[in-house]
Amino acid sequence: MKQSHLFTKTRREAPRDELAKNAQLLIRAGYVHKEMAGVYSYLSLGALTLKNIEDIVRKEMNAIGGQEIRMATLHPSEPWKQTGGWDQVDVLFKIDSRTEKEYALGQSEEEIVTPIASEYAPSYKDLPLSIYQIGQKYRDELRAKSGIMRGREFGMKDMYSFHTTQEDFERFYEIVKQAYLRIYSQCGLVAKVTEASGGSFSQKISYEFMVLTDAGEDTILYCTECDYCVNVEVAGETKEGDTCSKCGNSTLQSGVASEVGNVFDLGTRYPKALGFTYKDEEGNEQYPIMGCYGLGTSRLMGVIVEALADEKGIVWPASVAPFTLHLVNAMASDEQAVMYADELYNLFTSRNTAVLYDDRDARAGEKFADSDLIGIPYRIVVGKEALAGNSLELVNRATGEVERLTKEELLQRFTSQSV
Amino acid sequence: MKQSHLFTKTRREAPRDELAKNAQLLIRAGYVHKEMAGVYSYLSLGALTLKNIEDIVRKEMNAIGGQEIRMATLHPSEPWKQTGGWDQVDVLFKIDSRTEKEYALGQSEEEIVTPIASEYAPSYKDLPLSIYQIGQKYRDELRAKSGIMRGREFGMKDMYSFHTTQEDFERFYEIVKQAYLRIYSQCGLVAKVTEASGGSFSQKISYEFMVLTDAGEDTILYCTECDYCVNVEVAGETKEGDTCSKCGNSTLQSGVASEVGNVFDLGTRYPKALGFTYKDEEGNEQYPIMGCYGLGTSRLMGVIVEALADEKGIVWPASVAPFTLHLVNAMASDEQAVMYADELYNLFTSRNTAVLYDDRDARAGEKFADSDLIGIPYRIVVGKEALAGNSLELVNRATGEVERLTKEELLQRFTSQSV
Repeated sequence: MKQSHLFTKTRREAPRDELAKNAQLLIRAGYVHKEMAGVYSYLSLGALTLKNIEDIVRKEMNAIGGQEIRMATLHPSEPWKQTGGWDQVDVLFKIDSRTEKEYALGQSEEEIVTPIASEYAPSYKDLPLSIYQIGQKYRDELRAKSGIMRGREFGMKDMYSFHTTQEDFERFYEIVKQAYLRIYSQCGLVAKVTEASGGSFSQKISYEFMVLTDAGEDTILYCTECDYCVNVEVAGETKEGDTCSKCGNSTLQSGVASEVGNVFDLGTRYPKALGFTYKDEEGNEQYPIMGCYGLGTSRLMGVIVEALADEKGIVWPASVAPFTLHLVNAMASDEQAVMYADELYNLFTSRNTAVLYDDRDARAGEKFADSDLIGIPYRIVVGKEALAGNSLELVNRATGEVERLTKEELLQRFTSQSV
Repeated sequence: MKQSHLFTKTRREAPRDELAKNAQLLIRAGYVHKEMAGVYSYLSLGALTLKNIEDIVRKEMNAIGGQEIRMATLHPSEPWKQTGGWDQVDVLFKIDSRTEKEYALGQSEEEIVTPIASEYAPSYKDLPLSIYQIGQKYRDELRAKSGIMRGREFGMKDMYSFHTTQEDFERFYEIVKQAYLRIYSQCGLVAKVTEASGGSFSQKISYEFMVLTDAGEDTILYCTECDYCVNVEVAGETKEGDTCSKCGNSTLQSGVASEVGNVFDLGTRYPKALGFTYKDEEGNEQYPIMGCYGLGTSRLMGVIVEALADEKGIVWPASVAPFTLHLVNAMASDEQAVMYADELYNLFTSRNTAVLYDDRDARAGEKFADSDLIGIPYRIVVGKEALAGNSLELVNRATGEVERLTKEELLQRFTSQSV
């Protein structure tokens, strides 16, 4: 895409009321537009980035047998009243209507997915079953904070699974856990898995996926040697400096972390409340065991910014970035440079490499600053040496490393599968 | 995808309260699940179909320079109060919250997109500008009817454009019109363009795109020779049988039709209400001319069902169908047939052909009936003749035409670009 066509522009300053680093940078770089506290629109660059995150999540959920659907977000009140959520879930938005019908806005989809699963899984032969969607969620938060990390409207992947036994749920949970860890790894993050309290939805222990970042809202204790990790909320008397109770080889460290996913063991609560039974092998009606697996897609985008950004701006991992390459013509007023850069842009795009081409009539310094702020993984600079037929500068945004490559080397590197 | 893995199943009967053909068939075939009147969830097949429609729309909008974004659906009340929509738009859902803030649910996005455009288009040099999104919309309808064609929650592509002159808006409208007609054509429909009244949003004439179908909610008068077409709502004294006022060569016919898109000339109404001005070449502040271009994606899915379905079930055009091929093993209890069909399935999927493979242990007659109901464009039948090494039956769902082809011929036909 030519940057002259991109309707957003960078800004020097973020709005004063925006305290979170992720939102400050995303607004300044033109990824998001703040509609009000906790509600953002995703502009061209933001929509591309979010789509990439969703595609990573989708691929991993499909790979473990998840079936994608799209559930309604405008919910009838009846199932919410049946499960008790209508009165118990304080963040539930409720809507009156002209027809005197009451609606809820989806903040989670147990009330919708359970009747769907019930209709199509009348027998033990239809289980296990895992269904997911990627879509908008709504929460009536008292205080929206942390930019796009904690909003009143946000993107989420929510999967729900149904099983005949607790063992089968736990087997599937392990599979989901590995898929989640692969997702975070592809997003450039290292996540730790903690046990946490189940919140208002569940009496059982739940699992949280946490990324160490100063922007986090939780404190965790983790072992520096093994994968032991616990949220201080449920850590009891365990504290920093204690010997790890799991491996015994190291002491626990404390860190501020951000939740990037969670798993709830819902037991038979929703099937019981909503009348979902299946016939077992003996023909008896049984309630299935239900699991819920959340992963906030817009939140994840915010956490990536928090965890990887530097003083110059956003730093995207290649998997998530809106474009792979930022092609910058540093000599915009030079006709020969324009022709050279145009040709390079056409070569890349004809080979399906995602390039943002800064073809604007602006100073090189301004272009480089914008490029650093926007955070595309690699920058290619068309300058004097390129025109002299020698080489182009390739800058790695994350490391700052500069290489000099010929046009042919660049084409080979960024249009093959090896990128 | 193996049909044994697809969690939905077909149903013999639609729910009794579902009167619309599109919803009856889509529910029976497992595409959608009704949550309440006017609100549906899209199950695996439905989500795939809707995605295909969205991709057709997306490609055409990008081709005419539209920039895709994702706007919030939870709206602050302030811009709605500024434009008057808060009190005037009777279908607007309003939400109270714990924080005493009032919100609206997006039924259109003028109140959100205008401030976004205003921020990034301070100068005439930034115009024209066209921005669109594909997402959910909400309307507090008194009566939800016509299945997925008229809902309280529905999918929509809404584009907004901003121009310095009326002429430039009209130039762009013609471009959008051609893109819309290409979209309908790719969806297997023939659309006519009418002039209609502008509704509550606009004092000006608007344009509607109509498809002739008995499920329609409008009556149109159209010329059988030229492209003249008018909604009877604004036809004045013009009536069926009148000589066409445009070409003079033929008489007008009357028909029931369904709206599949619309264009509103919004003038400067929203820029004025929301304070969007740009600097013209002389440095004077001006209000841009604004256009709005709607296309209901879920509605379009319903109209395709209405227009193309036959007595056996749904008939999808290949561009929209959830799968290109329905591979049916008609001898599910024959080990050799299972091996043959498995191999064929693997060959197609390894070549990226979208195949639904009916590997279920069920009678051939039941499988054929399900296949007709689901409406995938081509059915390949693995039966006795295939095992004898001769040929496979290829059935065209729309025409009923049967061909006999060898395995190699089928692979060539459905794994090349020529399909």
